[in-house]
Amino acid sequence: MQKARIPITKLTGGIYRNTLEYTNEVFKKYSLGSGTYPYLMILYNKEGISQNQISKELAVDKALSARVIKKLIDLDYIRKETNTKDSRAYCLYLTDKAKAIIPAMKEELGIWNEIMTQNLTEEEKDNITDILSKVLGNIKKYRLENEESD
Amino acid sequence: MQKARIPITKLTGGIYRNTLEYTNEVFKKYSLGSGTYPYLMILYNKEGISQNQISKELAVDKALSARVIKKLIDLDYIRKETNTKDSRAYCLYLTDKAKAIIPAMKEELGIWNEIMTQNLTEEEKDNITDILSKVLGNIKKYRLENEESD
Repeated sequence: MQKARIPITKLTGGIYRNTLEYTNEVFKKYSLGSGTYPYLMILYNKEGISQNQISKELAVDKALSARVIKKLIDLDYIRKETNTKDSRAYCLYLTDKAKAIIPAMKEELGIWNEIMTQNLTEEEKDNITDILSKVLGNIKKYRLENEESD
Repeated sequence: MQKARIPITKLTGGIYRNTLEYTNEVFKKYSLGSGTYPYLMILYNKEGISQNQISKELAVDKALSARVIKKLIDLDYIRKETNTKDSRAYCLYLTDKAKAIIPAMKEELGIWNEIMTQNLTEEEKDNITDILSKVLGNIKKYRLENEESD
C-alpha cells in the first residue's frame, strides 16, 4: 500500500507563496513586486539572453514574460539591444540601476534562505537541493516532450 | 567554506510556476485559473473554516483571498454561512457543484505528482516531504513571530 504523503505541490506552493510575500515586502522599495525580481537575478547570471530564454528558464508563458520585461524596461532595470546575429531578436541586459541593487537583493534573499533552512542539517540541505533538482528535471523533460507533440 | 547550492526559492519557484501552468490548463474546463483550485482542496479537507483560516493555510494575504473566494462564490463552487457562534463571521463550504468535480481534480493532481516524482526512490519521496515540511515549519514560526511584533 502506498503511504499517504503531503503532496509536493502543496509544500512547494506554500514555500513559493511565502517567498513571494517576503520578497514583495523587502523589494517594495525598488518597485519590484509580484515575482519580478527573478528576472533580474537570471539576467545577472546570464546577461544578453533573449525574452524566450528567460521565459523557459522561469517556466512562465511568453505573454507574462513580455509584460514583466516591459515593466522592468519602463523602470529602467532592463535594456534591450538588437541581436547582431538576428535583427528580429533582442538581447536583454541589466542597466546600471539594476546592477547597483543586485548585491542588496542577494543579501535579502540570503536572509530569507537562512530563515527557511535554519534548523536543517548540511545533509538535509544537500538532499533537498538534489531531490528538488530531480523533480524540476522531470518537469522540464515532460514540457519538452509536450512541446514536441504540439 | 559553505558549499554553493541552488537556492530553495529558485527550485520551489520553478516547481510552483510549472504546477500553476499545468493546473491552469487541466482545470480550465472548470473555469478555475491562477491558483484558485487550492481553495477548493482546502475546503474539501476542512469544511466550515473561515476566510482568515484559509488565508493562513495558504499563506496569502487576506485581500487576495477575499477576491478569490468572491470569484468562487460567483462560480457557485463555494457558499458562505453565518457563523452561529459569531454573527460577524462566515464559515465557508463547498457547494454540490464543487464536490462533484473534486474526484476528477484529485486525479489530475495525482497525474501531475506522478510526472514530477517518477524516478524518485521511496526514500527520496519521504525525504523531500520531511525536509519541505521542516522548511514550511520554519516559515510559519517566522510569520508567527512577526505577526506578534506587529
